[in-house]
Amino acid sequence: MTNLRKLSAVGVGPGDAELITLKGFRRLQAAEVVFVPQSKDGSMSLAHRIVEKHLSDDQLVVSLPLPMTRNPDLLVPAWESAAEAILQVMVANRVTNAVYILLGDPMLYGTFTYIWERLAVMAPDLEIEIVPGVTSFAATAAVTQTILSTTDDRLAILPASYETDTAVLEDLLSRFDTIILMKVGPVLSQVLESLDSLGLIDKAVYGERVGMPEEVLVTDVRTLMGQTRPYLSLLVVKK
Amino acid sequence: MTNLRKLSAVGVGPGDAELITLKGFRRLQAAEVVFVPQSKDGSMSLAHRIVEKHLSDDQLVVSLPLPMTRNPDLLVPAWESAAEAILQVMVANRVTNAVYILLGDPMLYGTFTYIWERLAVMAPDLEIEIVPGVTSFAATAAVTQTILSTTDDRLAILPASYETDTAVLEDLLSRFDTIILMKVGPVLSQVLESLDSLGLIDKAVYGERVGMPEEVLVTDVRTLMGQTRPYLSLLVVKK
Repeated sequence: MTNLRKLSAVGVGPGDAELITLKGFRRLQAAEVVFVPQSKDGSMSLAHRIVEKHLSDDQLVVSLPLPMTRNPDLLVPAWESAAEAILQVMVANRVTNAVYILLGDPMLYGTFTYIWERLAVMAPDLEIEIVPGVTSFAATAAVTQTILSTTDDRLAILPASYETDTAVLEDLLSRFDTIILMKVGPVLSQVLESLDSLGLIDKAVYGERVGMPEEVLVTDVRTLMGQTRPYLSLLVVKK
Repeated sequence: MTNLRKLSAVGVGPGDAELITLKGFRRLQAAEVVFVPQSKDGSMSLAHRIVEKHLSDDQLVVSLPLPMTRNPDLLVPAWESAAEAILQVMVANRVTNAVYILLGDPMLYGTFTYIWERLAVMAPDLEIEIVPGVTSFAATAAVTQTILSTTDDRLAILPASYETDTAVLEDLLSRFDTIILMKVGPVLSQVLESLDSLGLIDKAVYGERVGMPEEVLVTDVRTLMGQTRPYLSLLVVKK
């Protein structure tokens, strides 16, 4: 028996509606239902805002509440509920093609992977497709004209919230040509202080919600010292 | 005076013509000239093959010979010639919109960055735009359903040809959750032996020319031991 139901997790890119892929665009247009991760503070509905102009009125959009927290007591039940909601909506509406949208690329710090684990247990017959997307760091590099790597360069991608130890950062910076600190906003002060003490602060560029109307790009990152910024932000440090 | 001439470096993604972004697609369609990096062995004209169906007959396609070598005596003159050719063609044909296409993303080990340096000197008034693209590792992760990173995971991207030292690889593997070894084909045997001795060979997946008709995907990478494979290939090692 072939699969009758397919869910495509589509990376819609970091912010610019034009940075979705043709494949992602076509999956969106063919979808009867679009699932949208939604955080309380609204920041995760950004994926919905990005693709809004690509959707038509007869497409069902279903928000899946996912709290912005590291607390597993809140996260695990939210993932379970999201997986249940996806299956319920797909069965009740006899959906054959659905899309789950998310910022950037699905496999890089994406929200779908956790829900996917539950779906795999709850509905092993559901076909899952991953449609890759442009990452926020590629978009930041493009718009700030920062070359990420050439020839023999090594590049590290680190989740900044877990990398505030100056010694660790120093060690990694000594081994890599380029370091990308993802989700840096909430710990920006600490990270900039570390970079300053390592003599690397002038090698960094900052991008926040790149491609969105409220985009922030800062090439003189010293001006950001002492600030806390939103979660959807990154630093590229190129030695 | 505003710029009259614009050159967009467009990352066309790793192989699937549908993985170009809407922005890249529109730039391609608006371009009077499309510049295509071309190696002797033909492998770099892959970018041309990917976008061929998006082009029309009235668009000029100009091949730029770029040798597949690390020898700077061959590379530097090739970059100079490519930059000269771009400017000559744009001036002679009064081109206002041109596109330079390349595989993956322009800022990650792309061919354009070297030519860009020369263009900046030769024609500082030429407007350069970078259009980011889907990387080969995102596409490989998508098609093999390999999660690259979640929550606090660290990810390293290494040019495999320069990373054949088992001790270095071991050290990096101890600090990172995911390692992507780009352009691994020519040194595949050595890298697989290192991974085997580190007990990580069963954690690796291999992708070659992902999304192209000749795509090769291998999840049991032991079957590749002793082989040499093409340059456009990678290993994802996920602990």
